[in-house]
Parts: sequence; C-alpha cells; structure tokens
Amino acid sequence: MKKILLQLDNDKFASVFDAVTAYDAGIDSLLQYGGVQPEDVRNLIYGEMFTRGGEDLKNSAAFIGGSNVEAGEAMLKAAKDSFFGPVRVSLMMDANGCNTTATAAVAKMLAHGDLSGKKVAILAGTGPVGLRAAALLAKEGADVVLTSRGLEKAEKACASIEERFGVKVAPQAAATPEDYNAVLQGVTAVLTCGAAGVQCVSEEMWKANDSLKVLADVNAVPPVGIEGVKSHWNGKEVEGKFLYGALGIGGFKMKLHRACVAKLFEQNDLVLDAEEIFGIAKTL
Amino acid sequence: MKKILLQLDNDKFASVFDAVTAYDAGIDSLLQYGGVQPEDVRNLIYGEMFTRGGEDLKNSAAFIGGSNVEAGEAMLKAAKDSFFGPVRVSLMMDANGCNTTATAAVAKMLAHGDLSGKKVAILAGTGPVGLRAAALLAKEGADVVLTSRGLEKAEKACASIEERFGVKVAPQAAATPEDYNAVLQGVTAVLTCGAAGVQCVSEEMWKANDSLKVLADVNAVPPVGIEGVKSHWNGKEVEGKFLYGALGIGGFKMKLHRACVAKLFEQNDLVLDAEEIFGIAKTL
Amino acid sequence: MKKILLQLDNDKFASVFDAVTAYDAGIDSLLQYGGVQPEDVRNLIYGEMFTRGGEDLKNSAAFIGGSNVEAGEAMLKAAKDSFFGPVRVSLMMDANGCNTTATAAVAKMLAHGDLSGKKVAILAGTGPVGLRAAALLAKEGADVVLTSRGLEKAEKACASIEERFGVKVAPQAAATPEDYNAVLQGVTAVLTCGAAGVQCVSEEMWKANDSLKVLADVNAVPPVGIEGVKSHWNGKEVEGKFLYGALGIGGFKMKLHRACVAKLFEQNDLVLDAEEIFGIAKTL
Repeated sequence: MKKILLQLDNDKFASVFDAVTAYDAGIDSLLQYGGVQPEDVRNLIYGEMFTRGGEDLKNSAAFIGGSNVEAGEAMLKAAKDSFFGPVRVSLMMDANGCNTTATAAVAKMLAHGDLSGKKVAILAGTGPVGLRAAALLAKEGADVVLTSRGLEKAEKACASIEERFGVKVAPQAAATPEDYNAVLQGVTAVLTCGAAGVQCVSEEMWKANDSLKVLADVNAVPPVGIEGVKSHWNGKEVEGKFLYGALGIGGFKMKLHRACVAKLFEQNDLVLDAEEIFGIAKTL
Repeated sequence: MKKILLQLDNDKFASVFDAVTAYDAGIDSLLQYGGVQPEDVRNLIYGEMFTRGGEDLKNSAAFIGGSNVEAGEAMLKAAKDSFFGPVRVSLMMDANGCNTTATAAVAKMLAHGDLSGKKVAILAGTGPVGLRAAALLAKEGADVVLTSRGLEKAEKACASIEERFGVKVAPQAAATPEDYNAVLQGVTAVLTCGAAGVQCVSEEMWKANDSLKVLADVNAVPPVGIEGVKSHWNGKEVEGKFLYGALGIGGFKMKLHRACVAKLFEQNDLVLDAEEIFGIAKTL
Repeated sequence: MKKILLQLDNDKFASVFDAVTAYDAGIDSLLQYGGVQPEDVRNLIYGEMFTRGGEDLKNSAAFIGGSNVEAGEAMLKAAKDSFFGPVRVSLMMDANGCNTTATAAVAKMLAHGDLSGKKVAILAGTGPVGLRAAALLAKEGADVVLTSRGLEKAEKACASIEERFGVKVAPQAAATPEDYNAVLQGVTAVLTCGAAGVQCVSEEMWKANDSLKVLADVNAVPPVGIEGVKSHWNGKEVEGKFLYGALGIGGFKMKLHRACVAKLFEQNDLVLDAEEIFGIAKTL
C-alpha cells in the first residue's frame, strides 16, 4: 500500500519545496492541491478518511502549507474538525515553514546549554517564526522578551502566545540601535526575525555584550539581522560566542522537515504543530 | 512502463477519494486535473492517445469524475468522440460515485435471489444513483417502479432511462408515508435514494410489509431513508428481511471501484459506464 | 532518491502529452503546474534549488511547456535567472513541442546528405517550428530562405533568428503556387510549416522540380502542406525524392523528447533549448 501525502496549500501553486521534501522523506505518492481555503479542507480530508480503513489509514496523511500562516492554522483546525473518532489521518502544519524554522532555530539556541531561567530575546518577533520561537523557549523555562517596533504590536503578539501556548512572554518596543542594545543587556541568547534587509544587531553591539552566548538569525538575504553573521554559519564560534545564520539553521530545518513527514506514516493520529515538531527536533 | 491514470474531474479540486482509490487499485502514477469541462476533454485525452502506441496504450487510461454527473456524462462522450479507430485508451465514468454506488446497491439487492418478474421500488429515485439502479434492475427483468414527489419529475426520469438504457420503468408520485406504503405493496426489494435526512420508509411500515425481502438505503446521514437501518448493516437479517445501510453497501462499492480501475489497464478499449461496471460487480 | 521533474506549463491544464512522455523517459515523480506565467517561475524553481544539495541536485529538473512559445521562452529565461552559481537544476524548454519538432524535422532533412552550401526552403516558416528549423539548418551551413505571405513578416522572423541564433536566413514573400514554385527553384530540401489545411506545394510542382531531393511537412491534418505526402511517410522514396509526413517525423520527435528528459537527470546544469536538443538528436 502506497504512502500517500495530501498537500493542502493556501497559495495558488502548492509549494515545490514542500513537495520535493515530502518525496525525500520517503512518501510514494503526492496529491498536490493549491489555492485551498479553510472551507475546502473538510471534503479533501474526507477523501483520505474514507478510502482506507483501520491499520491502513496510517498510509494516508496530510501536510498543510502555504505562505499564509493564519490560513494554515485555520486549515489545520478544519482538518482536525473533520475527523470522526478513530477515523482520522495524521496531519502536519508548516505554513511558510514557520514550525520547522522556529523549532530548528530554538534547537540551535539550546545546543549550548540549558536556557531555563536565562534571559532570551526574540527581536522583531511578531511574525510566525518569532511567535513560535518565543513560545517554545518560554516553555523551556527561559525568561523571554519579544520586541517589535511598536509596543502595541508586541503586546498583541505576546497575548496571542499566551492564548495559544499558555506561557508568558514579555513585550517590548525596539526600533533603534540604542533600543536593541538596551534589550540585549543580560541576555544569554538572541534570535532575530526581522524582514529581509533589516539589521537589528550591529557587530560592535554583540561583540561588546558579555552576557550574549548564542546568536541566531533566520534572514538569509543580506544585510542580515545580525551584522557579521554569515548565512551558512552553523554554530561558528567568534570571541566565545556561537553564531548561526539562516542557511546554517536551514540545514537542520530540512532534516527536521523530512523526519516529521516520515513520522506521519507511523500512525494515523498524529497532529504535528509547533510543540510536536519541537519534540521531534529534540530526538534528532 | 508505468500505468498512468488521467483523472478528469469537473470539480475545482479533483477528488481525493478517487485519487487514493486509484493508487490502491495498483496504478503507478496519477495525473490529476480539476475544473475540467467537457470541451477541455479532447486535448487532455489526446495527450494519452499520442504518447504510447499499440500494445503500450493499455498502460494509459482515464477516469472521469466530479460531483456533477451530467457534466461527467458529457465528458465521457467527449472522450469517446476523441478516438481515432484503434488509437484509444480505456475510460471509466463514475462522477459522484454514481455508477459504483448504484451498481453495488443493485448487487446487494440481487444477493438474496433472482428479482426477474418481481416488483421492485426505487424511492426518491430521480438522482443519478436512482436512475442507474432502476435501469440495471429493469435490465435484470424486474418490474421496477421509480418514485418522486412530483409525477412529472418521475416521468422525465423514466423517459431518460428508456432513452439511455432501452428499458421501461414505471413512474409514480410519492411524497407522504401513505404514498410510500401504497407503493411498497407487493414489492420484493426496495432502494431508497432520497436526500440526506429524508426518511421514506418507517420501521412500522416495513415490518408490516409481508412481500418485502430486501431493503437498501444509500443515505449515510441520519435520519436515514429507511427507519431502523444502521449505516453499517450489510445484509443484516431482521424478522426475515435483509437490510443494507450506506456504509454496508459502501464497502462493496470501494472494492468494486478498485476492481474497475485495475481492469482499465488490461486492454486499451474499455469504456466502463453503468452496465459494464455492473458486469464487473457480478464477477466479484 | 527519486528523479523529480517539475512541469511548468503556460496553459491552464499542464500538458498530458509532456507528462506521459516524462514518465516514459524514466522519471519517478512529476510535479505538474498549469497556468504558470514567467513571473511565477522563480519561486517554483527555488523549491527545487533549495531542497537538495550538491550531487543530489541532478535528481531534480524542470520542463517548460505550454502552447505559448513566447511565454515559454520567457519562462526559460526566468528559470535561468533564478540560479545562484552552482545551485541550479537542469532545464528543458519545449513549449508547443517547438524544439523537438523542429529538431526532428531538420534531422530527417539532413539524413540524405550534407546540406552545407545547398539551398534550403522553409515555407510558411514564421511560427516557432519554422524559425528553429531555419536557424538550425543555417547553422549547419545551408543557404536558407524562409517565406511568409507578407515580406515584412518574413523579415521580422529572419531578424529574430539572427538575434537569437546569430545566423542569417533570407526572407521572401510567397503566397501563390507561382510564388512557391519560384522559391523552390534550385532548392535541395524543403520543409512546410503552414497552418493546418494550407497546401504550399502541389504534387505537380515537386515532381517537376529536379533539384528537390528531400521534402518534409509538419502538418498532420489534411490537406497537408505538400500534396501527395502521407502523414506516416518516414523517408518514403518517390521518383528519387525522399518524403516525410508529420507522423513520420513525430515518431523520431517522441524518441528525442524522451531522450532529452532522460538526459536532464545526468547532471544539474543542463539547459536544453533548440541547439542542445538538436545536438542530442544527432546522437540518436
């Protein structure tokens, strides 16, 4: 019986990236659907639920993607709401790579020692990756601050984290080099999640900061979020600090993405969202 | 050489149900096309006709589906009209599951003895499943009555059956419990095809009916068409009568669907519509 | 690791012809995308570039097709412009079959002796096949004339050939039997590329022409471009001349198309456009 992955994507064209990665995770056949809205999900998922039974259902699974993360979350909910008791298939949600990217970045940040009770900063963190990284680090016991240019936006982000993940993250406004420098005082690990071309941390700033031990940046397009960091750095040690660029994190993200898709076919009732994907990251 | 199935579907998203079933029938690769109109079919079918030759053509076939059954019939005609003599591929039409569902229900009704010369009723039978079930039973020699709430609609349905299948079915209006009870007098087997939630036959009615031997219902959503029938019943015997629910019929429908798709690849000139699918059902 | 072909097609429905041919060329999985515009290409190609690395990249490739050849050319350019140094995948452009058809026709015309220094005519040659055939023959050293009903259109076509291929082809107006007869004086090989149903060369004309040795026609719908030629003729000798019909050329075109797709997976940096496809044709 073939391992079939149903790719439900909210972009016009279903992601080629997710498709190739699925094949490399060992699936046999892919059913690609682009332009999927949350209200379309039920019928599509039914097509998997009602074609195989019992043990065989674990050979059918669905991947939810697309560049719109909010729509991806609604699609995941719609898929879960379609199930009848044990008649269900395993699901993974990774719209815009938000879960695998955030999880891979957090795993890297944790690779140099426990961050429990330590101060951690997520700069320009109101996007999907920042929100998830902040939440996962807070769940690990870190004392997390999340910044945005406006305080109100940071507060809304932290409220959404508390609602979704049940953990508290401190909101803070930061827009200028001075703001960022103030935020980083006493911080052990920092992740920058700004838009392409937005530099949050200057080289002078991080080299002068004694508490900083791990720095990670998820932006691959120069200028990157942390000055001096090369995209391919994967734990490069510079003056006693460990630095990660987007491609350095990306290698692990890819491995994690493949491991998650492979795992979908081990049982028929997995739901791989941020926490579960982070759990898988810890086993790699 | 890979067994390639071309899925031509008149819904925006090509059916996941039909796709998974096709893989489970043993195909190697599926080409999915959603949003297909009858006028699109010729070019798509040409792509199969002109890529492989002679004996190899049997490794290419097409499945026509989608929730619009009339469009599915027009698509099947367009596909057949595309062929040049022996340059053709095998086709199966099962828009909205009409042929496999009708055929599976009829096979169940015939499982308890010949219905030739017996009175059979198809209640609320003007939809695609009802039309096909009535026609197939009439071709088996049964004396079939087909009901609708309005007589005119029932008459139109019976006329379309005579035109398409060359057999006569008696139209009758039935809307109330009294109507249905009157129709069922002297009837040996009954199939209910009403919309979700429309109950045609009460438990009191069928238990009091001495002639009724087989009762089948293709509606899976409660209240079902025959009161007291459970969806999963697959020939359950109650007071000397045999009862079938939608899921009970559905198990055989799935097996039949897979058998039909597998058969497409045995030769390059099959056209699997109602009669042929019923013929395959008899062999299972 | 599966050989994955990305099919980028500018028609609403990605070509079934190209899909089946790709599978017959030995690919494992196909990702079909219809309705692709040049501006969509970058993101889709990125999905292949960033999912596999190093040696593995040769297992990902892209095929650009669709009935709009100009859009296909723009899509090929967009794909090439997406690459970062060695991070690239192999590409084939064959929108509307233009490259494989033109190349196959030219290969047939060359099968009966060198055409270097000989006079060759491409009649009604301003379409994609005519342009490419004229260019390839000119690159082989032939003295090529390309006709259109209007001189201006022929001149524009020849200018576009010089710009794209760097070779000179002589434009000429030809609309009547007399015009075509005049063009064919002293010509050794002729290819007709007119629209379906347009006959350029009468049987009387070509039989009376002593210089003509090879005649080829790419139109399969009667009346064909060269009177008396049967579509399936594949070098049929008639009164000392060799004649080719559309299906005769088509058999070799198919073989060539499959060989090109197979070749895409031998390395990660091939770009198969007219010249490269012609190069592959010479090896078959």
